[in-house]
Amino acid sequence: MTHSQRSNHTDLSTPGQSVHSEASRPAAPEAQQAGAGSGLPDTWKPDPASPLPLHGQIYAYFLTKISTGAWPAGMRLAPQRELSRQLGVNRSTVVTALGQLTALGLIEGRRGGGTIVTGIRSVLPASLGSAGECGEDGEEVPPEPEHSGNWNDYVEEGIHYPNLPTIQDINRLEYEPGLIRLGTGEPAPELLPGAAMNEVLAGLAQRVLPPLSYEEPLGSPALRAAVSQLLARSGITAGPDSILITSGALQGLQLIALGLLPRGSSILLEKPSYLYSIHAFQSAGVKFSGLPMDGRGLIPEYLTAEAIRTKAAMLYSIPSFHNPTGILMDKGRRQELMEVKGRLGLPILEDGAYQELWLDAPPPPPLKALDQEGRVLHLGTLSKAASPGLRIGWIAGPEPVVRRLADIKMQSDYGASSLSQLAAASWLTGGYHEEHLHVLRGRLRARRDHMLELLQLHCTGLASWNVPAGGFYIWLSLRQAVSPRKLFTAALRAGLLLNTGDLYDRSDRRHLRLSYAYASAAELERSIPLLAELIRRGL
Amino acid sequence: MTHSQRSNHTDLSTPGQSVHSEASRPAAPEAQQAGAGSGLPDTWKPDPASPLPLHGQIYAYFLTKISTGAWPAGMRLAPQRELSRQLGVNRSTVVTALGQLTALGLIEGRRGGGTIVTGIRSVLPASLGSAGECGEDGEEVPPEPEHSGNWNDYVEEGIHYPNLPTIQDINRLEYEPGLIRLGTGEPAPELLPGAAMNEVLAGLAQRVLPPLSYEEPLGSPALRAAVSQLLARSGITAGPDSILITSGALQGLQLIALGLLPRGSSILLEKPSYLYSIHAFQSAGVKFSGLPMDGRGLIPEYLTAEAIRTKAAMLYSIPSFHNPTGILMDKGRRQELMEVKGRLGLPILEDGAYQELWLDAPPPPPLKALDQEGRVLHLGTLSKAASPGLRIGWIAGPEPVVRRLADIKMQSDYGASSLSQLAAASWLTGGYHEEHLHVLRGRLRARRDHMLELLQLHCTGLASWNVPAGGFYIWLSLRQAVSPRKLFTAALRAGLLLNTGDLYDRSDRRHLRLSYAYASAAELERSIPLLAELIRRGL
Repeated sequence: MTHSQRSNHTDLSTPGQSVHSEASRPAAPEAQQAGAGSGLPDTWKPDPASPLPLHGQIYAYFLTKISTGAWPAGMRLAPQRELSRQLGVNRSTVVTALGQLTALGLIEGRRGGGTIVTGIRSVLPASLGSAGECGEDGEEVPPEPEHSGNWNDYVEEGIHYPNLPTIQDINRLEYEPGLIRLGTGEPAPELLPGAAMNEVLAGLAQRVLPPLSYEEPLGSPALRAAVSQLLARSGITAGPDSILITSGALQGLQLIALGLLPRGSSILLEKPSYLYSIHAFQSAGVKFSGLPMDGRGLIPEYLTAEAIRTKAAMLYSIPSFHNPTGILMDKGRRQELMEVKGRLGLPILEDGAYQELWLDAPPPPPLKALDQEGRVLHLGTLSKAASPGLRIGWIAGPEPVVRRLADIKMQSDYGASSLSQLAAASWLTGGYHEEHLHVLRGRLRARRDHMLELLQLHCTGLASWNVPAGGFYIWLSLRQAVSPRKLFTAALRAGLLLNTGDLYDRSDRRHLRLSYAYASAAELERSIPLLAELIRRGL
Repeated sequence: MTHSQRSNHTDLSTPGQSVHSEASRPAAPEAQQAGAGSGLPDTWKPDPASPLPLHGQIYAYFLTKISTGAWPAGMRLAPQRELSRQLGVNRSTVVTALGQLTALGLIEGRRGGGTIVTGIRSVLPASLGSAGECGEDGEEVPPEPEHSGNWNDYVEEGIHYPNLPTIQDINRLEYEPGLIRLGTGEPAPELLPGAAMNEVLAGLAQRVLPPLSYEEPLGSPALRAAVSQLLARSGITAGPDSILITSGALQGLQLIALGLLPRGSSILLEKPSYLYSIHAFQSAGVKFSGLPMDGRGLIPEYLTAEAIRTKAAMLYSIPSFHNPTGILMDKGRRQELMEVKGRLGLPILEDGAYQELWLDAPPPPPLKALDQEGRVLHLGTLSKAASPGLRIGWIAGPEPVVRRLADIKMQSDYGASSLSQLAAASWLTGGYHEEHLHVLRGRLRARRDHMLELLQLHCTGLASWNVPAGGFYIWLSLRQAVSPRKLFTAALRAGLLLNTGDLYDRSDRRHLRLSYAYASAAELERSIPLLAELIRRGL
């Protein structure tokens, strides 16, 4: 697939119109259209080698989708020219196929353009499916329930916000081959421990395994003991009873949002922040109050003033190798922060996802290590260093808090995968983790230095950047503002997948989160000049 | 540990008082106290063989808990007599240890009884931790944020309801050895596929594995293809694009609650129902409207009337081997239900968790197999037949709906464990699943028949029951009403863990959910007479 084709490769369907008012979703107005709008690509195409004519294949495919309910009544199909591009056929072929479906009453054109699935119901005998909102004999039908039964209403109406459109695009496009992922926040496959993980699995396969039943609410005792030791190496004292195993650190955030904060509370956080790119807190009705940083991290003076002004319930911070800026909060700042916390009684949620990934020197002790009052919740994960796919993270904090969160976790998914927990415990206690970290740091260091060189070579004058001492990210500051969505789209057309700054601060128009963890050396060499060119054109 | 000890084995801590009004939590008033109240047992005890005196050991243990923040300021300790019982020491030993901690200012007695942790802050120099809500120099402190920073406020204030107290107790007590679990909704470890699962893992260990990265939003394509084939065998047509992999079927419910239903909507469901025992929907502000069943399943007349009256957004049903009643909805009822659905345009959420576990004959086709309009979402899981610990379930439904749910799943935990997905795909495609089901059905049939015999022998005249044609459950109807909590507690004292009927219908006082899937034959023989005796005494 060429790049120009890819950029046109969208869904066969587009959603019905949104019925939400902006007022009901203040935090993510632009997400309304995209909520049901973007989606997974349907990669099916008719086969020119088949004895069936192309329009017949399309007709049969659409018929199956509609008659099995995969495409339900009310779903809007993409415009004809879009369908023809996507299916790789002439528009007349599409028109023939759609005509056959229209004749059967399975779809219908709407005034103002667009084609709507009317569904199989309209063509069934009356005894099986009498008319509903699409039928003609409405008067015989009992009063309709509030919902029309049209799924489009439902996908628009849930409590949880949809992801930002750009995030939805990224989530989908990351699985398209050929794109260079310049902002991805995960280690490249070649940085993940393939052979060592096979060794761990082989070890498990040889043991008489405990049957894979549910685990205790806090998680497997063996894994909690292993995490307790891991945390001890960073200076954190947390016994297994103070640790909850989660399905990744993201789930930890979700549990905290649902379990500890009343609707309408405020949390403080760095701005920009990873937290702006997800909706765990906003969907729970929690307001954000962003605080400025300098090169040493969060600025304590603003913190005090803002905590008092907003009556904040909590501070969320990523002190080590901040996402997206890469900033490392220094020791002095950490101590000042803990003083503010002590003075205000302000609980802190410390996100330690990147703290093991130092490149030059170990970071100062985590905030949790400085906390003797039990005011800090500490989040950690295996996703950034060892294996995103294991989906293993943890929360360390006061026992009553982790118990409350464990109770909600039991209600969410009955705990993380036992198999993943077994593998993670072996990984940590078998010494694999330390060994892998050592290798990984060296390789990330080389990648960082390579990206810095390329930026120096191609982006000098166009942008400035920090030199991160750990983690995955370089926060590229453009000399002039751009439209993030335009830059994203233009980059995509050029084969680059970007994480624009607006994902981490809605009003940002002059940053990019670059990651040296994912793209290969060759990809970097190809893409940084392309990126520079895009920025130059945007300026 | 003897049974009488166990029933006293509670937590070292009890929570602060709840500050919630009942009005704010209409659905679960009794949960308020228990929300932070019950919790994980802290099994530590002082060691009589140690050279340190017992009170010194207790002092040191408590000091560590408090100084590391595991027991935060504001946490209430259990009463002295409770502590002495739990620690296995004289009350005077407890008094000595607590006295030392009080002298240090780490805890303090409160009027009206109880001891509160004041925390390490109160004993630190002022520069490190000046006084907050517990200190004396309050006037020097800036205005307090809304929250006192006391975690007890937080654990009471989250949006998500805590589990019911009895469920919390069950979740905790299931990990205590020695108790006979008469109601547990999972297969006993000896029914799980130990050797076959080792074979699956060995197979994975020998392959060059894909690195354990994140999977696509809908889940691993290989697993979705395997689930699609599994569903086809039950008559359901759902392509991989119509399937979302979840972390167990429970997460499917959570995603639907958050993603498809606006606050304040109503869903219809069978009463009693499994859904009453969890809070996924209530926490999302969804109201329940319970419908009666007879031996053939849900009664369609009530459904129509109630759907119109409540303007229901959805019907939740477990047509095959209903949890907790074991009822199998017959073919005629399924067709009637689909007619009502068609007439009203009412979407259905079909929980198929038990449908593979037929014992006498395969059940009629699932509702989803009868659905040509895409109005049915179908939930399935590997937890009931193959492995609870894999945490693999799925939702099959219209593509726009599963995409919306996938987006929320990405925001919840970035997808289910890749390792579990790999293992599950091997399990399904390697033929292990069918083979295991065949063996499992035979063993469940023998267990069911054994339990029925024992009930006949011991409970005739005290209760009546159904003969389930599949699944795990016998719904025992007591001849006279009892207090469910009293029966639960009395049974616990006798070493039996019961699932009382009130978990599945708040007002129920005369049912028990018995499960033949967990307790062994010997345990059943010991426990059914004990249960009969308890019921007899309760009458």
